[in-house]
Amino acid sequence: MIDPSKFKVIGKSPAREDAFDKVRGRAVFGFDVQIANAIYGVVLRSPHTHARIVSIDSSEAEKMPGVYAVVTSKDFPELRPGGFGDIARENLADGKVLFHSQGVAAVAAKTEDLARQAAAKIKIEYEALPHVMTIDEAIADDAPILHEGISFDGSEGRSNIHEKIESKIGDIEAGFAQADVVRERTYTTPVVHQGYIEPTACAAIYSEDSQSTVWSTTQGHHALRDMIALNCGLTSHELKVIPTEIGGGFGGKTAVYLEAIALMLSKKSGRPVKMRMTREEVLRCGGPAAATKIRVKIGIKKDGSITAMQGHMLYDSGCFPSAPTGGAVRSIFTAYDCPNVYIEGYSVVTNKVRVRAYRGPGAPQACYAAESLLNELCDEIGMDPIEVRLKNAIRDNAKNVAGIQFRELGLVACLEAARDSDHYQSELKPGQGRAISAGFWFNAGGYSSATINMHKNGFVSLTTGSADLSGTRTALAQIAAETLNVPIEHVHAEVGDTDDVGNTGVTGGSRTVNATGQAVHQASLNIIDQLKERAASGWNVLPTDVEWDSGKVINTKNPDETLTLRDITRAALQTGGAITADSSVNIAGGLGPSFGVHICDVEVDEETGKTLVTRYTVIQDAGVAVHPQFVEGQYQGGAVQGIGWALNEEYIYDENGVLQNPGFLDYRMPVASDLPMIETIVVQVPNSMHPFGVRGVGEVPIIPPLGAVGSAIANAIKMPVADLPASPVRVLGLIQARDGSASAAA
Amino acid sequence: MIDPSKFKVIGKSPAREDAFDKVRGRAVFGFDVQIANAIYGVVLRSPHTHARIVSIDSSEAEKMPGVYAVVTSKDFPELRPGGFGDIARENLADGKVLFHSQGVAAVAAKTEDLARQAAAKIKIEYEALPHVMTIDEAIADDAPILHEGISFDGSEGRSNIHEKIESKIGDIEAGFAQADVVRERTYTTPVVHQGYIEPTACAAIYSEDSQSTVWSTTQGHHALRDMIALNCGLTSHELKVIPTEIGGGFGGKTAVYLEAIALMLSKKSGRPVKMRMTREEVLRCGGPAAATKIRVKIGIKKDGSITAMQGHMLYDSGCFPSAPTGGAVRSIFTAYDCPNVYIEGYSVVTNKVRVRAYRGPGAPQACYAAESLLNELCDEIGMDPIEVRLKNAIRDNAKNVAGIQFRELGLVACLEAARDSDHYQSELKPGQGRAISAGFWFNAGGYSSATINMHKNGFVSLTTGSADLSGTRTALAQIAAETLNVPIEHVHAEVGDTDDVGNTGVTGGSRTVNATGQAVHQASLNIIDQLKERAASGWNVLPTDVEWDSGKVINTKNPDETLTLRDITRAALQTGGAITADSSVNIAGGLGPSFGVHICDVEVDEETGKTLVTRYTVIQDAGVAVHPQFVEGQYQGGAVQGIGWALNEEYIYDENGVLQNPGFLDYRMPVASDLPMIETIVVQVPNSMHPFGVRGVGEVPIIPPLGAVGSAIANAIKMPVADLPASPVRVLGLIQARDGSASAAA
Repeated sequence: MIDPSKFKVIGKSPAREDAFDKVRGRAVFGFDVQIANAIYGVVLRSPHTHARIVSIDSSEAEKMPGVYAVVTSKDFPELRPGGFGDIARENLADGKVLFHSQGVAAVAAKTEDLARQAAAKIKIEYEALPHVMTIDEAIADDAPILHEGISFDGSEGRSNIHEKIESKIGDIEAGFAQADVVRERTYTTPVVHQGYIEPTACAAIYSEDSQSTVWSTTQGHHALRDMIALNCGLTSHELKVIPTEIGGGFGGKTAVYLEAIALMLSKKSGRPVKMRMTREEVLRCGGPAAATKIRVKIGIKKDGSITAMQGHMLYDSGCFPSAPTGGAVRSIFTAYDCPNVYIEGYSVVTNKVRVRAYRGPGAPQACYAAESLLNELCDEIGMDPIEVRLKNAIRDNAKNVAGIQFRELGLVACLEAARDSDHYQSELKPGQGRAISAGFWFNAGGYSSATINMHKNGFVSLTTGSADLSGTRTALAQIAAETLNVPIEHVHAEVGDTDDVGNTGVTGGSRTVNATGQAVHQASLNIIDQLKERAASGWNVLPTDVEWDSGKVINTKNPDETLTLRDITRAALQTGGAITADSSVNIAGGLGPSFGVHICDVEVDEETGKTLVTRYTVIQDAGVAVHPQFVEGQYQGGAVQGIGWALNEEYIYDENGVLQNPGFLDYRMPVASDLPMIETIVVQVPNSMHPFGVRGVGEVPIIPPLGAVGSAIANAIKMPVADLPASPVRVLGLIQARDGSASAAA
Repeated sequence: MIDPSKFKVIGKSPAREDAFDKVRGRAVFGFDVQIANAIYGVVLRSPHTHARIVSIDSSEAEKMPGVYAVVTSKDFPELRPGGFGDIARENLADGKVLFHSQGVAAVAAKTEDLARQAAAKIKIEYEALPHVMTIDEAIADDAPILHEGISFDGSEGRSNIHEKIESKIGDIEAGFAQADVVRERTYTTPVVHQGYIEPTACAAIYSEDSQSTVWSTTQGHHALRDMIALNCGLTSHELKVIPTEIGGGFGGKTAVYLEAIALMLSKKSGRPVKMRMTREEVLRCGGPAAATKIRVKIGIKKDGSITAMQGHMLYDSGCFPSAPTGGAVRSIFTAYDCPNVYIEGYSVVTNKVRVRAYRGPGAPQACYAAESLLNELCDEIGMDPIEVRLKNAIRDNAKNVAGIQFRELGLVACLEAARDSDHYQSELKPGQGRAISAGFWFNAGGYSSATINMHKNGFVSLTTGSADLSGTRTALAQIAAETLNVPIEHVHAEVGDTDDVGNTGVTGGSRTVNATGQAVHQASLNIIDQLKERAASGWNVLPTDVEWDSGKVINTKNPDETLTLRDITRAALQTGGAITADSSVNIAGGLGPSFGVHICDVEVDEETGKTLVTRYTVIQDAGVAVHPQFVEGQYQGGAVQGIGWALNEEYIYDENGVLQNPGFLDYRMPVASDLPMIETIVVQVPNSMHPFGVRGVGEVPIIPPLGAVGSAIANAIKMPVADLPASPVRVLGLIQARDGSASAAA
């Protein structure tokens, strides 16, 4: 049993490795990379939402002085549809444009301005096609079809539905029959963006026979390397990707956007090429989160027992298959131990930008629907929503609807902590609404690598392959320090490039401190083995005759003989060379399942429909919180993003499929002044699958807010909130509908 | 017994990893590093050759707009004399200036020009001291003393001699008594510079609490890191040194020159700082090779048996203890199996720039003296110089005078190859001279590290800690390819920074393909072990049940079951994570002793004294030549540098101790048009201490040329050549002396 109180370094919150560099402006982000003789690339983007490309004539652009290269999809190897092939086509359209602002050509020139001027001289002839922008349009019988040959059921038919996922246990109809109350409602959520501060940016140098290099602000440079290499017809060992510091990603920077284009422009021009997206491009073309339409049906007894849960989910992929429907199906009802469940998820293509991961991909939308309806049912049967959830909560060693076998689970602990919290015990002011919502995420394992180099003075350099989005460098340094029994100040951690360190999956899915942490732990144990071997060799005993104890190696044959870590490292070069270790792991199935429960209070201005979040508390099981300050930061940041999703954020398209709000003035994310201080309660139910009990904390906090905020508004205005965002205009509509004046307002 | 003909990749000469990048100008050398907001540092240098610093006033400089920081030795931690402390004081004088152009202060400003203008405004008051410029001046009884407290014999006396090294076997006087002919002569050699093309350059970013970074063109970034860290009061884990490409080093770039200053300027200014030396600074302040005065005495019988060899060697350290006297003592007579040897070596400080390593440090000068005198004795007894050397040559399993135990030695093979060569068999034209010279170097082992990352497709990324001065990346890739049984095109090799890879000694002493090659071999074997483990796990057998055979793993329990390397790597992420390995070794005592024999033909213009080398052949034992083209390149480059040393290169000082020829116009290095094509014969006597028989090839080629060229001129003009360089004016002097007209010419 892991006891967090026994740790010396884990559970403290040391200063982050990168604090000074970031505060003082020295940190090198994507576009800060400086390369002698670099030129600049820009992408020419489609003015059409769905169109065939008839011809591209770039001759005039190419003739301009200072213009070095133009590329189109013709310059890249042709890849099969699906997977990387789709990514390539998303970056630069191949024959057909599928969304407004899709890339069609790119230009590299001495300056960005000049490249833009040249791009404007590229003549492209299009043949416009009818487009579909919404799930309903896409699944209509006579809908224009985006991709020939796609189907979800193996049929030869033409369809915009590209995927169907089902999951069931028990007998759903029998379950509903057992219920005292059954309700069903359809919920919709819009396209929202991760809203990372740092726009996509990269630099690329093509090299004929040695090694090409790409710098990128990315969540996963090994995966990025493989994607760029495939896009550009290279093998992965011919390409090195160097991760820069990253100004936010949240799942959105797991893709290749500009990098392959930059590398191909570098190849054609013989020059280093730098590229970046404008904020407008980021919003138009940088994969946001999926819009959804989800019908949920729940049956409940008067005593609060849930008898049946049914979900019919439609996820909008945008223009290429990519919706996170699988994650939604696997997570929507996982919080509840319900005997009768049926879920079907469909993924649909539309003429919008392809979607990407966004914290807990797919789950916030699904959870919004499930938790909103459950809250409605709690009202109906007159039971406290926490009590209802406690009654039905999934507990240790359960299996979820998708067949995933769990061990220790922290939902009950979180619900109890929520129930007993100062927030939940506090009184609401008149007119305020309150609601809670639970949320679940798996927190993946996967493959990760770490290397450790010991210094003469016993200090430790740690390199991992995990991009640091949120302070993971420091948390991973803590794991090394804890294992090696050295102070955290003796460990320097950094993110290695694709050659420095073994293949490591993306920083995402809340897997980093879980899986990479285990690679760090393994590498540290390997170092300890070497320390024992060196000491044993000096004492002329067997390695099995020595023991490691709290930073010292002891000769069990003569316990007076001890050597500290530093004694051994000091002599290392003489006793066999440097002491270094690497470790690569695949934590297959090594999930760190975690639950969160959020409590939200709101005040709704009945005249304007504007919602003010007045108090908000995140309760979440961290397993063990390696760096409690970072954990709290994750809780707060996720909650804020979820609140934005619930209240204001949405992609607004005009009738031509053109995004109308591609900027942070019109795409309204919450800022500090919009919000109360987000309160946090860190529950710790150690994960026995991890050497230090870690679960992963980044995804869960964004999952409950949509339901918590929506239900709190519903509680305040006494009307269900079934469509997000609950923006002032929409909430006002609900108030007016409630008051019977909906038609007057419309 | 290693059979080079069995290798698939070793012994071929694949294209070098860095060819295109260098040819196309993309390679990043020291000053090519680009950093946003970088400012530029320059060093203010002493106009005195020996002086006390009374005061430094930099207030006016500091006030100039665009000037960010000024540093002097006061800004650095005070370090003990000797070692790093001397290096710090050499870079920035601490109280006392010891050579003309020693740094006294440094300025960082927006531009180099501005920094220079500011440096000119720093007011320094000096108190001049008398200086000593030559070995003879330094050891004179009344010589001004550079350092208080230095002595070579433990005495309390004041001395400029800081070291005495002795070595002897047998009875030297008895040996001379047995000889038929005994000769003694004193030889002198001047200060010469390595003449690398790329001047010293670096960039530095200081970071308060995370990790400072230095880029440098260096032969050893781990050693450089430790030196900079100590100089700047950091621990080594607080500093990362990133090696750039390096435009030549030859031993001269094993030191810290500008890096600590740049880092301290960065600390004071809060900005990245770039610095470089001008060519003039490189020659004035970039540690050259030691001047020497060497008296040699050899006794020989008429049958060619050498009975006694005696050396009395004085090496000039420049201003801090640093002369390579030890290497000279250990190598001077190593080629010969002589029963009676006595060597004494002294190191002396003078008011010149401190010396540094230069290819085979100390040996060219010592070998020049020994081989010149031996050639003179061969003439005297009328025996062929190759026959005499064959008669006395050191053979397998011998021990040298310094007590080093050898195994296989290639001297006899080289002498026989020289004797049988077309060159040696060819006739000289009238007036031409010919001579041979042998030379020896140890070729060190030491500590090295390598890491290997396997790609999905079975390709290999190899990272080592060895700066690549001469193509070693490619040679090390060949070792990995040979061990893993993959084509060389499947391996990409690169040089890792100080955190990417374990501590690795400098690229020098011809240790890289020897020691780092063994780290690569170990890491490759580790990869093979993992391939076997993965395969065994898949077959559900023990790792001991599987065998590796030529790129395949075979299940010995069922020999039909085989998996190729690529089969296993393709599945690696699923079967346990990436396959990576690191290896750190210390090849202690793992020498790769090697001999070379050079044949030189010259033509001397008796009117001008100008010598033309008309034919030149290098015969050398490479052990196994991993990349024969590179080996030949090393042979040719070393020979050319030795020819320059013999014929033209020298530091010329005026009476004030100011170098008079600090530029490539006046410091005359040979260029292509000065030379014939250097012929090479690669002898291969595999070194059984290395898994692939490697010895190391970089040092030996510069050792014989001084004796070969000097003796060839002696052969042509019939006068001994005892002082280098044998420049036209000096050779003309010898011709005139020979003809009895010396006084007229003088």
